Amino acid sequence: MPETTQLTAVDPTAWTCPVALRDHPRVVMGHGGGGALSAELVQHIFAPAFGGETLSQLGDSAAVSLGGVRMAFSTDSYVVRPLFFPGGSIGDLAVNGTVNDLAMSGARAAYLSCGFILEEGVEMSVVARVAETLGAAARRAGVEVVTGDTKVVESGHGDGVFINTAGIGLIPPGVDIRPQRVVPGDVVIVSGDIGVHGVAIMSVREGLEFGVEIESDCAALGGLVDAMLAVTQDLHVLRDPTRGGLGAALNEIAVASGTGVVIQEGDVPVPPAVANACAILGLDPLYVANEGKLVAFVPREHADAVLSAMRAHPLGANARVIGEAVAEHPGMVVARTGLGGTRVVDLPIGEQLPRIC
Amino acid sequence: MPETTQLTAVDPTAWTCPVALRDHPRVVMGHGGGGALSAELVQHIFAPAFGGETLSQLGDSAAVSLGGVRMAFSTDSYVVRPLFFPGGSIGDLAVNGTVNDLAMSGARAAYLSCGFILEEGVEMSVVARVAETLGAAARRAGVEVVTGDTKVVESGHGDGVFINTAGIGLIPPGVDIRPQRVVPGDVVIVSGDIGVHGVAIMSVREGLEFGVEIESDCAALGGLVDAMLAVTQDLHVLRDPTRGGLGAALNEIAVASGTGVVIQEGDVPVPPAVANACAILGLDPLYVANEGKLVAFVPREHADAVLSAMRAHPLGANARVIGEAVAEHPGMVVARTGLGGTRVVDLPIGEQLPRIC
Repeated sequence: MPETTQLTAVDPTAWTCPVALRDHPRVVMGHGGGGALSAELVQHIFAPAFGGETLSQLGDSAAVSLGGVRMAFSTDSYVVRPLFFPGGSIGDLAVNGTVNDLAMSGARAAYLSCGFILEEGVEMSVVARVAETLGAAARRAGVEVVTGDTKVVESGHGDGVFINTAGIGLIPPGVDIRPQRVVPGDVVIVSGDIGVHGVAIMSVREGLEFGVEIESDCAALGGLVDAMLAVTQDLHVLRDPTRGGLGAALNEIAVASGTGVVIQEGDVPVPPAVANACAILGLDPLYVANEGKLVAFVPREHADAVLSAMRAHPLGANARVIGEAVAEHPGMVVARTGLGGTRVVDLPIGEQLPRIC
Repeated sequence: MPETTQLTAVDPTAWTCPVALRDHPRVVMGHGGGGALSAELVQHIFAPAFGGETLSQLGDSAAVSLGGVRMAFSTDSYVVRPLFFPGGSIGDLAVNGTVNDLAMSGARAAYLSCGFILEEGVEMSVVARVAETLGAAARRAGVEVVTGDTKVVESGHGDGVFINTAGIGLIPPGVDIRPQRVVPGDVVIVSGDIGVHGVAIMSVREGLEFGVEIESDCAALGGLVDAMLAVTQDLHVLRDPTRGGLGAALNEIAVASGTGVVIQEGDVPVPPAVANACAILGLDPLYVANEGKLVAFVPREHADAVLSAMRAHPLGANARVIGEAVAEHPGMVVARTGLGGTRVVDLPIGEQLPRIC
């Protein structure tokens, strides 16, 4: 292929940059990090351009109605490096990430689409292994890959394998899970140890050793959510804290619900290996990505029963109450520290670890 | 970002390459071209890995049932260069390409997902213009973008803007459009001039001038298909001849239906500007991509009425009968030439023009 120049028949310089974006006339890594920069991009570019009420709700998935049937619809692209890591691969992420986004609406994923963007020159054996892990993950999650697409870009214009999946699944009648339903008094439950996926990726990417091998927690959460819904359909919000970690997820919920959130720092389950790795790398575990965990805001009267149901499920064995929604400081997340003080848990600007999913 | 090496915790060399793929131990551009190489990749890697009956039917979109409702589900990634070209942009393609894949099942697109993979350093103004053209195309097509995702990869690991869209739409009751329904005697109709999109892209990419500016035919075909279905629901197959052009589309239909196809070369509408450009570049217009055209196999008794309905629609004004399905040479496409001879129209190996969509 001859090297070609990027022509623009339409003059993009005619565009007037919104004030909020003027610090960044060009895309930086943080725009893909799931934090404040990502939110700016959505708020000032994508949402105005696309319009639409559903998109503006900005859940992990969209709840839509088609032919009178209520369903969740979601998409994610996966650009993780490396493609294979302890505990999983880009194929596992591509299934579980999208399945989990649907599960956060209470929907059980039924069908997935799968689009590959391959870089010229990547070994066919790598493509085959990725496809095998993706297919196996889909079978484990009980979802069928029904449609797909493959594009190839010239060597040096991609990075091995990028994958996009989109998924659809039924939302059970009566289930209405979204941040706007959160009220002060709701109990905040996390399904298990946080920070594991991000540290697992970083350990292989940077060739770091932390004494023990840390495996990604990548998993499909549909079964865990089903177990929670079996206790009560009245779950207020669910979120899987991927990019930006638990800190970003709690901030998004606080802003969208207009309530405050208080967490007890000492109650957040951080495994020693993750804590050690974060100390070495200068990372805050609250902002490290997870791929097999969820955070739930549950009405207080159902909290004990939901927690018990979660602990009875393999993916929720270490579930913990970590805090509550409060009427004070709406839109803000505060952590009570071990010393009795409090600190604000901000929305991160970008992502501490780029390309973790 | 520090440069990192591609680690593979799983050893991909343990994989045994299927015989059919041994000529290509690494991915080449043609694997994304929609021809024989793409088919090999799907047949020997993706289909076995993913399993599933629906995927193996390999239509432009999958027909699935959710909550008792029959719908089409499809995805495509868009990697076109340049991002803006005469007559459209990657934003237009990202909407129309997926909307058209749904329309080829008879479904009117209702909702789209949209995933961006941005390259660090791309001008924010370019992202904004792409988003605006995508939003405008969605409104023209009557489809709502309801969910999205943005990832960013390091400079040199992407190429400005890649987009994936997936779409869902209802299939009207009684409509069953798929190649397996083609029977000998079916009339082959093309909705208008072919080869325009590919030549438009090539003209700006290579800085070639062909006397007149050729604009892409990129358009959403939902309205045209609705007009055809209003005549009869008994359309046998529809296909939008994108990558690989009309030649690839006819071959896919011939193979999947087990019938032969004969076209009259002189009846295929090729505009003079496309014919000239193809002559200069050594391309066959039958294999050049289209983005606003469809080919239909229609029962003979409905052909005249369907053709009239197509011609009454702005996107079908130049619709023509170009051939028929035959019992002879099953799985093979043959063109009768202007001199009275015949030639086989093969499935192309790859794509003559990489990255045209």
